[in-house]
Amino acid sequence: MANDKPLILITNDDGINARGIFYLADAVKEMGEVYIVAPDEHQSGQSSAMSINKPLRITTHPDYNGIKVYSVNGTPVDCVKLALHTIVPRRPDLLLSGINHGSNAGNNIIYSGTMGAALETCMLGIPSIGYSYLSHSPEADFSNTLPFLKSITSQVIEQGLPQDICLNINFPKGEIKGAKVVRAAKGFWTEEYAEYTDPMGKPFYWLTGRFQNIEPNAPDTDYYWLDRGYASIVPSRPDQSAIDIIEELKTQFE
Amino acid sequence: MANDKPLILITNDDGINARGIFYLADAVKEMGEVYIVAPDEHQSGQSSAMSINKPLRITTHPDYNGIKVYSVNGTPVDCVKLALHTIVPRRPDLLLSGINHGSNAGNNIIYSGTMGAALETCMLGIPSIGYSYLSHSPEADFSNTLPFLKSITSQVIEQGLPQDICLNINFPKGEIKGAKVVRAAKGFWTEEYAEYTDPMGKPFYWLTGRFQNIEPNAPDTDYYWLDRGYASIVPSRPDQSAIDIIEELKTQFE
Repeated sequence: MANDKPLILITNDDGINARGIFYLADAVKEMGEVYIVAPDEHQSGQSSAMSINKPLRITTHPDYNGIKVYSVNGTPVDCVKLALHTIVPRRPDLLLSGINHGSNAGNNIIYSGTMGAALETCMLGIPSIGYSYLSHSPEADFSNTLPFLKSITSQVIEQGLPQDICLNINFPKGEIKGAKVVRAAKGFWTEEYAEYTDPMGKPFYWLTGRFQNIEPNAPDTDYYWLDRGYASIVPSRPDQSAIDIIEELKTQFE
Repeated sequence: MANDKPLILITNDDGINARGIFYLADAVKEMGEVYIVAPDEHQSGQSSAMSINKPLRITTHPDYNGIKVYSVNGTPVDCVKLALHTIVPRRPDLLLSGINHGSNAGNNIIYSGTMGAALETCMLGIPSIGYSYLSHSPEADFSNTLPFLKSITSQVIEQGLPQDICLNINFPKGEIKGAKVVRAAKGFWTEEYAEYTDPMGKPFYWLTGRFQNIEPNAPDTDYYWLDRGYASIVPSRPDQSAIDIIEELKTQFE
């Protein structure tokens, strides 16, 4: 049966039980035919990881406000790949990932499962957006993001995105004053592990730490504007080839 | 005790039982003080994933040819982060990842655990190289790569690398005619899942497929030269911000 509405595939890395993905689905459901395909479980920090050494299964859930809902026992990239292979009836016109409960700003995009999914479909030529909100709370109030979710998503449906570019969008908590198109701030993590001793006296370690923005005063970066109450929009490219540096290295290595 | 030799940290994504990592360690062990910290198990396709929801443990293995050897129950990024936090006695001067049993050429770098580790230390300012060999065989014969491993590694120790740049190096099978500094070829995977039915009649899926290079005749790409018997060196940047596109998108989204 023909369907002229854009097909919108929605995934996330917080898993099928997170509120953010349903908030996002409600925000855009009038714009197209929406499918939700999300991980069974929390997949934060899974980057572009995919499952090579295990079988994947698809679970069908009850419809949500008229939207078909599935989950997969894998990563965000697994969800996207398997959705395209098996679940959606035609090639999606748009991929949305999120709303992530927590920041994917700065160079944290590299670890982000939210953005792993968006980069995956971007490489296939599908316009792709990751949305994240700067609160890890499962009960986060996303209501201030609504006008931005609607306007950015509808603009991308109408106008598309430049080739090989997807968007990494982060929203600050509280009032949102506007949006800024910027690059990712550089930083690093400090005090990365909590150390414990198990009942047998053996040590174990658990990832923790604090992100240290090393360029807090750079007005062309995402954290700068997030700190000032603006949404940040970072156009992001899956291809990491440093083309500008190739000539310089030819003399050294060829 | 002072030690003036460069500290070389070596990891991989094939795990502590893979031959490639020991071949690489032997190739460079005269150049510095070498530490091996690799995943307990196979971590191919783990990209920059890190373990957030589980405790990590370090296993100490017997020395290998005078090299200290550890493994971690996590991803390549976990290995690197935990090595820096807990295992190595000072900041490494160089990170090597590999030799990977299998290609990380083209846009497959985005899924590569081998390169996930290299991108991680690159973000910390440590010169970082991922080495991969175009054979998945556990018994792969790496001997043709030896002169390249030695010369490239020693050059990077002596001269460093440009800021925020690491190297994704792939070796062809057979005779290696030389090395080319290039960008990653673009492509996509086809026929991505094998489909099965379990004894209860339920479907499951397993990742498979074939990489389709969409620009096989582009002489500035890695696959072009790998197909012709050359090693490929792709300078790679962790930051995926598409800085060149920011101005264009400001008019659309601000």
